[in-house]
Amino acid sequence: MLLRMSTLFLRTLREDPADAEVPSHKLLVRAGYVRRVAPGIYSWLPLGKIVLENVARVVREEMDRMGAQEVLFPALLPRDYYEPTGRWTEYGDTLFRLKDRKGADYLLGPTHEEMFTDMVKGEYSSYKDYPVTLYQIQTKYRDEARPRAGILRGREFVMKDSYSFDLDDDGLKRSYEMHRDAYIRIFDRLGIDYRICFAMSGAMGGSASEEFLAPCATGEDTFVACHNCGYAANAEAVVTPAPPAVTAEQPAMEVLDTPGTPTIESLVTYVNERYGLGVTAADTLKNLVVKVRTPGSDEVRTVIVGVPGDREVDFKRLEAALAPGVPEIFEAEDFARHPGLVRGYIGPQVLADLGITYLVDPRVVAGSAWVTGANEPGKHAAHVVVGRDFQPDGTIEAAEVRAGDSCPRCAHPLSIDRGIEIGHIFQLGRKYADAAHLDALGPDGKPIRITMGSYGVGVSRAVAVLAEQRHDELGLVWPREVAPADVHIVGTGKENQIEVASELAESLEARGLRVLVDDRQGVSPGVKFKDSELLGVPTVLIVGRGLAQGVVELRDRVAGTKEEIPLDQAVDRVLAACLPASPA
Amino acid sequence: MLLRMSTLFLRTLREDPADAEVPSHKLLVRAGYVRRVAPGIYSWLPLGKIVLENVARVVREEMDRMGAQEVLFPALLPRDYYEPTGRWTEYGDTLFRLKDRKGADYLLGPTHEEMFTDMVKGEYSSYKDYPVTLYQIQTKYRDEARPRAGILRGREFVMKDSYSFDLDDDGLKRSYEMHRDAYIRIFDRLGIDYRICFAMSGAMGGSASEEFLAPCATGEDTFVACHNCGYAANAEAVVTPAPPAVTAEQPAMEVLDTPGTPTIESLVTYVNERYGLGVTAADTLKNLVVKVRTPGSDEVRTVIVGVPGDREVDFKRLEAALAPGVPEIFEAEDFARHPGLVRGYIGPQVLADLGITYLVDPRVVAGSAWVTGANEPGKHAAHVVVGRDFQPDGTIEAAEVRAGDSCPRCAHPLSIDRGIEIGHIFQLGRKYADAAHLDALGPDGKPIRITMGSYGVGVSRAVAVLAEQRHDELGLVWPREVAPADVHIVGTGKENQIEVASELAESLEARGLRVLVDDRQGVSPGVKFKDSELLGVPTVLIVGRGLAQGVVELRDRVAGTKEEIPLDQAVDRVLAACLPASPA
Repeated sequence: MLLRMSTLFLRTLREDPADAEVPSHKLLVRAGYVRRVAPGIYSWLPLGKIVLENVARVVREEMDRMGAQEVLFPALLPRDYYEPTGRWTEYGDTLFRLKDRKGADYLLGPTHEEMFTDMVKGEYSSYKDYPVTLYQIQTKYRDEARPRAGILRGREFVMKDSYSFDLDDDGLKRSYEMHRDAYIRIFDRLGIDYRICFAMSGAMGGSASEEFLAPCATGEDTFVACHNCGYAANAEAVVTPAPPAVTAEQPAMEVLDTPGTPTIESLVTYVNERYGLGVTAADTLKNLVVKVRTPGSDEVRTVIVGVPGDREVDFKRLEAALAPGVPEIFEAEDFARHPGLVRGYIGPQVLADLGITYLVDPRVVAGSAWVTGANEPGKHAAHVVVGRDFQPDGTIEAAEVRAGDSCPRCAHPLSIDRGIEIGHIFQLGRKYADAAHLDALGPDGKPIRITMGSYGVGVSRAVAVLAEQRHDELGLVWPREVAPADVHIVGTGKENQIEVASELAESLEARGLRVLVDDRQGVSPGVKFKDSELLGVPTVLIVGRGLAQGVVELRDRVAGTKEEIPLDQAVDRVLAACLPASPA
Repeated sequence: MLLRMSTLFLRTLREDPADAEVPSHKLLVRAGYVRRVAPGIYSWLPLGKIVLENVARVVREEMDRMGAQEVLFPALLPRDYYEPTGRWTEYGDTLFRLKDRKGADYLLGPTHEEMFTDMVKGEYSSYKDYPVTLYQIQTKYRDEARPRAGILRGREFVMKDSYSFDLDDDGLKRSYEMHRDAYIRIFDRLGIDYRICFAMSGAMGGSASEEFLAPCATGEDTFVACHNCGYAANAEAVVTPAPPAVTAEQPAMEVLDTPGTPTIESLVTYVNERYGLGVTAADTLKNLVVKVRTPGSDEVRTVIVGVPGDREVDFKRLEAALAPGVPEIFEAEDFARHPGLVRGYIGPQVLADLGITYLVDPRVVAGSAWVTGANEPGKHAAHVVVGRDFQPDGTIEAAEVRAGDSCPRCAHPLSIDRGIEIGHIFQLGRKYADAAHLDALGPDGKPIRITMGSYGVGVSRAVAVLAEQRHDELGLVWPREVAPADVHIVGTGKENQIEVASELAESLEARGLRVLVDDRQGVSPGVKFKDSELLGVPTVLIVGRGLAQGVVELRDRVAGTKEEIPLDQAVDRVLAACLPASPA
């Protein structure tokens, strides 16, 4: 491949686009890789298309290597496929819906679980057919409420999605591990800095779901990371280490008048000043009442969650912990229906009698004593001891995770970092197989319900993530495997520099390199250097003023180093710089 | 590439799908290349995806070779881009339209003229920037009224579309010729049998538009072909050779009573029997009145078209000839407004006085005499001579073209053949540049309006066309460049045949071939042979009963030949069969 800038459809911009907030968006637009068409909808210019294809190629090679088979689904899909799973409706406004000329309902595929399931059902019938893993690299559509950051969160984007189909849970685990390994190879090859984050709490099945997050200051996702042992998790998946049970004898429970203490802070101040308890917010037990709705049924349970008073309940963690149940706010009319629950003064002491489920933070261990509500207006109780004065129905990971909390693996203080999701692997189980009745005929003639895994890589997003992670104040700095070229040869000067640059370009192309040559006439050296820094090809060869002395300059865009080398060594030196890490 | 049928996601079908009418549809479904999702919307299974990618690769290589630059547009496009050209409305029901969550109008791109024009306008400004040719290989959407024949005419399909941007007509002609050459290379490499058909009459600018049509009995398009000189054209583009002018003296014009002659046939019979004229239908002059509307204005002209009475007016030819004017039927109320036009008895003798434009078929030459209407009810005129009794305002290509008509190039009788459009090249001119105000700043500081060419290849359609043209009663017969594999190795038997087949497969893959190996256990030889014929890989190697004698069988799927060869020569013989024509 030899791209000549004299004819390349590329115009770099000196100014950041007005709508760009994050570096990748600014740089990909300025360097002429992408152009905006509509919110969250972009066109790819030639250099951008090359980078996008390079990412897709790496993903394809690693998916093929793990034995996944490539297929291609339509993006325009009839509603029928998305009815049995309820997703035609569930997707809400995020789904692009349309009608054809006959009035039939269609959607633009945001994800293809239903289609993959249907495809396997159409072809396979016997247990001997399984396992199988299928993938596609395809354009997907989601009508995001807030498309942002250029191609980082688009409404039309390219994704690799794959699904594994297995006869049993062990098979699913194997398929999951193979994907995990493939994803590690993919993101390593792409040169993305990433963390593999637990995406689901242990209670839900250990490593049944992990996200590949690229740490990045501008990321939309937060994740919890241990910089000591490498543990990483979504906030939803963080497991709170439980302190040891308390065996010391505690004073008897005592009900205290606590007028005018609407907040934990005011309560702590009051009980310390009035009763000399000497407690902190962490010694109080805050109780949140929620309604938990069971999807697909009318059942609504009341659940109370107890967390130490120095922490808020993190509603996303609460949702994850209660899934598939859906927690909802307990409204005034709900309190009206439960006169035993005294709003603002709930304590766990009465919940068993009321028949209400009570789940506590793991820090609320057996034998520990708490200041909590006394189930009477204006009153709190002190020395309320777990196991003596109340018995929780279980623990729940619902309290917020804070920087400085202990790592569940090594007890080192945790950090809260920002990142961008670039991959997700998930043991989906039988949800879609159930909806589609996807069974294999077993050796005994009985049907075996298939279990599925779901695995995604954001292909176009990976381009933005690389731009986000790999840039400096001058411009982009592509890893070689995805760079639009191996080497950028810049000819500057009014003698024969451009001619020599073009000859070198041809020699290097003939040796198998992908070459970009700046052979533009009448463009100043300063502009050419700036463009080369902005475009971010990893190796740069300057054919400039030194040419008269038989010298050219070899630059390493990543290391920022420059070296003058003899012209007659240029081809070999560039090859040496490019080939070791060049794609096979 | 090594595909093993023991794990390949492929299940062939013994029966034709119920909805399939044409061979390509039946075979691509039976052989497990595609599956239907909705009318005109298909999924690609692994072998189909490989073939589709092979076609795309050939197209991409040839587009790159001609210097076109690849970009990628979104498929989901905001309405704004399609308003200035009027196509948001003009496309009618063929356009898939939808709204986003904010109620903004979007469409699924059926074609991207507006987008390419806008992209070039966004990047380029100076005359020095031009020329440029951009292309994309992308999924397109058209809500066809009658999607048919599987992927032959789909509603979601893959197309290569490119646009050339030039400063002047000579540049456009050069870009057009480069595309024409690239298309010839593409379709030659793909192994498609095609004709390059004039798609526009000479009057509109010679070769300003040509279609690449694949002759095919099941094709939707008809075209006119000369099997002597190779001339081919759309019916709309066929030029009628004019006979020489008639110089012989003609009898004086005569008005005849012709009661009860509503048809040409009855008129001919009547005038021959009653007046002994001895004429045929070809000696009568039939006059069709039309209204011609000028798009974008209220202007409506009346035009009368005269054709020999043995031919019908072909309305598509008439439309093409009058374009950009739009002909419409002349209704009873129109006749009421033109009392000079006697319905059923119109003759050209009075049209000059009435101020109505009169255009004739090229066969209506100077000095020729005709039987035609006498502009009085129940009366016709004989010996009505061109140039003496009336003077046409010009000629028009509106009469139907018939098999047996003379080739305009070599006078050999023409055939009417059926075909499928696989490519179209078109000198578009300035329509879209005008709508977008796409100008280059000229050397004198004055703007130069850009002129464009438009060029398309049906990528997914090409797969269907190949299946249509290249099959036999046993199955598909792929040309090597697009085949899903170079060689299909079939292991049959209960000894070590499958093992040896797998070893050969690995050896051949290591030598650079793309290999499909049938390593299925417990499948009969008959089923394996049938599958191999159905799948259509060009070279087949059977490792079967002969193995005990050290013999395998080499089959050529195209030639239908079989040859027993020693096992130890198998690798070299397969390489020799595959490599000469294998893709680089």
